[in-house]
Amino acid sequence: MKFSKKLSVIALSAVLLLPSNVFAKTEDYGSAKNVIVMIPDGMNIESLTTSRWMSDDFSLTLDSMATGLVRTNNANTPIADSAPAGTAMATGVKTESPFVGTYPSSASMPGAETFEEKRSKMPIANVLEGAKRLEKSTGIISTSNIQHATPADFSAHHINRNAMEELAEQQVYQDMDVVLGAGSKYLEKENRKDGEDLIAELKTLGYDYITTPTELKNSTSDKIWGMFGETELSYDIDRNPEEEPSLAEMTEKALEVLSKNDKGFFLMVEGSKIDWAAHANDPVGIKSDVLSFDKAVKVAKEFADKNKDTVIIAAADHGTGGMTFGNNTIAKGYDKAPLEEFTKHIKSAKFTGQEFENKLNAEKSNVKELMAEGYGIEDLTEEEINSVKTAKDVQAAVGKIVSSRSNIGWTTGGHVGGDVALYCYSTAEGAEVLSGTVHNAEIGKYVEDLFDMDLKKLTDELYIPAREGFESKGATVDYVMESKGNAELVVTKDTTTLRFPMYKNYAIVGDKEVELNGLVIHNGDKVYVPQSAIDLIK
Amino acid sequence: MKFSKKLSVIALSAVLLLPSNVFAKTEDYGSAKNVIVMIPDGMNIESLTTSRWMSDDFSLTLDSMATGLVRTNNANTPIADSAPAGTAMATGVKTESPFVGTYPSSASMPGAETFEEKRSKMPIANVLEGAKRLEKSTGIISTSNIQHATPADFSAHHINRNAMEELAEQQVYQDMDVVLGAGSKYLEKENRKDGEDLIAELKTLGYDYITTPTELKNSTSDKIWGMFGETELSYDIDRNPEEEPSLAEMTEKALEVLSKNDKGFFLMVEGSKIDWAAHANDPVGIKSDVLSFDKAVKVAKEFADKNKDTVIIAAADHGTGGMTFGNNTIAKGYDKAPLEEFTKHIKSAKFTGQEFENKLNAEKSNVKELMAEGYGIEDLTEEEINSVKTAKDVQAAVGKIVSSRSNIGWTTGGHVGGDVALYCYSTAEGAEVLSGTVHNAEIGKYVEDLFDMDLKKLTDELYIPAREGFESKGATVDYVMESKGNAELVVTKDTTTLRFPMYKNYAIVGDKEVELNGLVIHNGDKVYVPQSAIDLIK
Repeated sequence: MKFSKKLSVIALSAVLLLPSNVFAKTEDYGSAKNVIVMIPDGMNIESLTTSRWMSDDFSLTLDSMATGLVRTNNANTPIADSAPAGTAMATGVKTESPFVGTYPSSASMPGAETFEEKRSKMPIANVLEGAKRLEKSTGIISTSNIQHATPADFSAHHINRNAMEELAEQQVYQDMDVVLGAGSKYLEKENRKDGEDLIAELKTLGYDYITTPTELKNSTSDKIWGMFGETELSYDIDRNPEEEPSLAEMTEKALEVLSKNDKGFFLMVEGSKIDWAAHANDPVGIKSDVLSFDKAVKVAKEFADKNKDTVIIAAADHGTGGMTFGNNTIAKGYDKAPLEEFTKHIKSAKFTGQEFENKLNAEKSNVKELMAEGYGIEDLTEEEINSVKTAKDVQAAVGKIVSSRSNIGWTTGGHVGGDVALYCYSTAEGAEVLSGTVHNAEIGKYVEDLFDMDLKKLTDELYIPAREGFESKGATVDYVMESKGNAELVVTKDTTTLRFPMYKNYAIVGDKEVELNGLVIHNGDKVYVPQSAIDLIK
Repeated sequence: MKFSKKLSVIALSAVLLLPSNVFAKTEDYGSAKNVIVMIPDGMNIESLTTSRWMSDDFSLTLDSMATGLVRTNNANTPIADSAPAGTAMATGVKTESPFVGTYPSSASMPGAETFEEKRSKMPIANVLEGAKRLEKSTGIISTSNIQHATPADFSAHHINRNAMEELAEQQVYQDMDVVLGAGSKYLEKENRKDGEDLIAELKTLGYDYITTPTELKNSTSDKIWGMFGETELSYDIDRNPEEEPSLAEMTEKALEVLSKNDKGFFLMVEGSKIDWAAHANDPVGIKSDVLSFDKAVKVAKEFADKNKDTVIIAAADHGTGGMTFGNNTIAKGYDKAPLEEFTKHIKSAKFTGQEFENKLNAEKSNVKELMAEGYGIEDLTEEEINSVKTAKDVQAAVGKIVSSRSNIGWTTGGHVGGDVALYCYSTAEGAEVLSGTVHNAEIGKYVEDLFDMDLKKLTDELYIPAREGFESKGATVDYVMESKGNAELVVTKDTTTLRFPMYKNYAIVGDKEVELNGLVIHNGDKVYVPQSAIDLIK
């Protein structure tokens, strides 16, 4: 499928609408049976290089796959957040913060030229939803909770990335085959406003719901939902392998399960906490989780080499922290400084600043001991010890100390706007790799092309504004909040009454559940239903 | 020509010798008639992105050419300097600071596995010297003085990058066809220890020695040496077009002249002062000279498109300054900040911090006025005004103020170690582009391959240790310092006396000059001569 150049560009109320090379690539990239999108969240290029220097052989699997750069801007601002950037990668459409899987409400920036005001905030069908309709298997993996922005971008829709419960419920009814990571908190009835027991529901839906690496290893199910943490997994170097699988292990299991499907699969794998470490300016967290991410890339690459017909695309959604290998301490003499001056406290570090906090005793009297044990730092000043003791964010305080002794620079606790590295690898005969300087949205379009899908058409089938849709058929529509957080759309025509509980994939007709071919979603603004819901009204 | 995998790796005294992917690419890249290497000195990826946001259409010619990343480390340390990094790009061999065009004295880092201790500090034949022997035309262009590390790397050899006079003289005798930039200072007899008038010598050698844009435009010579500044050209936005040509104009003229040769050409183009602006943390200098560099890339790309059979490779030698688009001022709200908050003081800035210094009056009483005029900054604090008045480095003081109001971060006044972007574009039929994550040295090897050269063999023909070479033929060798800075090698055998003045391409036999097929070089350590010099002893 070629990228359509005919998408209409309507008049904008926004300030800017400028040429860009989002449509530079009009070629057909070919087709692939399997696609794996891998996202090292927040990894700027300097943290990639820094982590490579901390590896044993100074090389990464990613290195062999570099093909260019990715422009990360949102639809309306230059610095990305995970929610809009992941949406672009999942749907081919740039959006705005804090939207997850929905169109933006305005668009003024390069790469967002296809904005149509009438679609403002509407859910957009993503590549996973598209793959599902091709009867491919699908999966998402993250080291954060799976309701977090990036994995949610590939499996749910809401204009507020913090609507964890709403995002969680959509994921439960997306009929994915493999979901691995953290996030049990938002599935447990005691933590949900609607009181629904989504873990029980997952089991009813046929998932092998698991919580340990041993169960993961032993599961023979074709549908696995593994939650190994309430809201996050540990950084890889802090991880207890008895309690949590590595990102590589989760990737390996997912590929084992998904590849059973002769029609192929789509898998999204996120190294979520690279971003978290970068927010805290913790170089040990960066090193830990970039290298752990790269091991997952190695698993994926070996799968692609062995099974062929597979394309891997890896790219960060944005840089975080502004990390640099080198800082003002060596503003002179940078080119003479041996590697050891950068690696000595990081390469063989024992734990991250997050785990440092866990190890702090009640009196916080063991800062010195932990610094020596964790990083071989034995020259702490009193001021530094106090900075850790009094820190609101211990990880950041520890990161600062480790960075200062490792000539590592940082510019922010937030995100930065620089291009990130583009990686692409294909063992699909005839499927070209994505290369050059591309917009993040082109990654979504690339996957759409590899699977020969039309996501805009699918969007129009899956996400119809419910009120307009039903009313046009002469029905009346009520949005009813039955109990806290538990809403449904009640649609009446003549003697027929249909009930559509939010975030599920079925209607209730009388006392019968009728399955829909998509989700009923309140995206935080309006309710959207699939065409099959509208069709229930004669 | 395939990259030889047989280069022997000898035992090292150094600490590390580790696998790496320097030899990952063993394929034949094909051939090209013309090669243009373009170096945006010091441009890290964030300064690329920042500059793109300051452009009118938010896109760069470079964008279409991105193919991967470049690892910039020196032979023995992780953070590069221009001298060793440019050497790697010019010769295919990583070296150390502050060496220009010579082998390192040690090598412990990835990408430097071919190190041979017996070659320590010896000159290495570069791609320009190789192209010359293929009877291709050659040229170098820079916005610094052309004796500065990067252009010197492609045209001279010395273990001290600051040996400007020695580097200058080598360039004069390299028989290049086009040399454009600054650097007349080191050619003028009054500024040279050896008292030689190299400008007169250039004219004798047949160069059209020019100093103005008009002369550049009007020259019809096949050999042009244009010096438009003593030691540097102005930043592009500070430039008086009556006095200095733009980098794009110099590139255009060079291509016009070099392309007259049916056998093709090699051209190196450096945007030198991106690095200088980054050292000063001056975002306006960055924007000025990245965009100016990109215009030169556009000229080169248009040439390649029109003339075919041309490969362009562009890559920074290293990042400088650790610039980031975004800083701690917007550690919260980064994804909501509109573009204007980054561009308002930079995009339409009137001059750089360097020109600001030139415009400061004797009393330094016009800081406020200049800040308003130059950047539209009208809210200076007294402290900031004083910081400029008392600054040792006015450009840095101004850069800090502009950066602080533009949400631009910096981590150092020195270099950083992150990978830089790799750009490659080919209109040569069958010549593949260089892609992936490559070492800087692979760029040199790539050019070597495109020209079907063997630079190691050429090195052994051009740079023979003089004493050993002549003594092995039974001659005696004296190094004679005739006058300050004016040395020659005096070689005697039987009744024959040969004199080899340093840095020239001839011997004196009796009162006759005998041309050699290469330079006589004291590299700061020893004297090296071409085989043709040795051959003069029967």
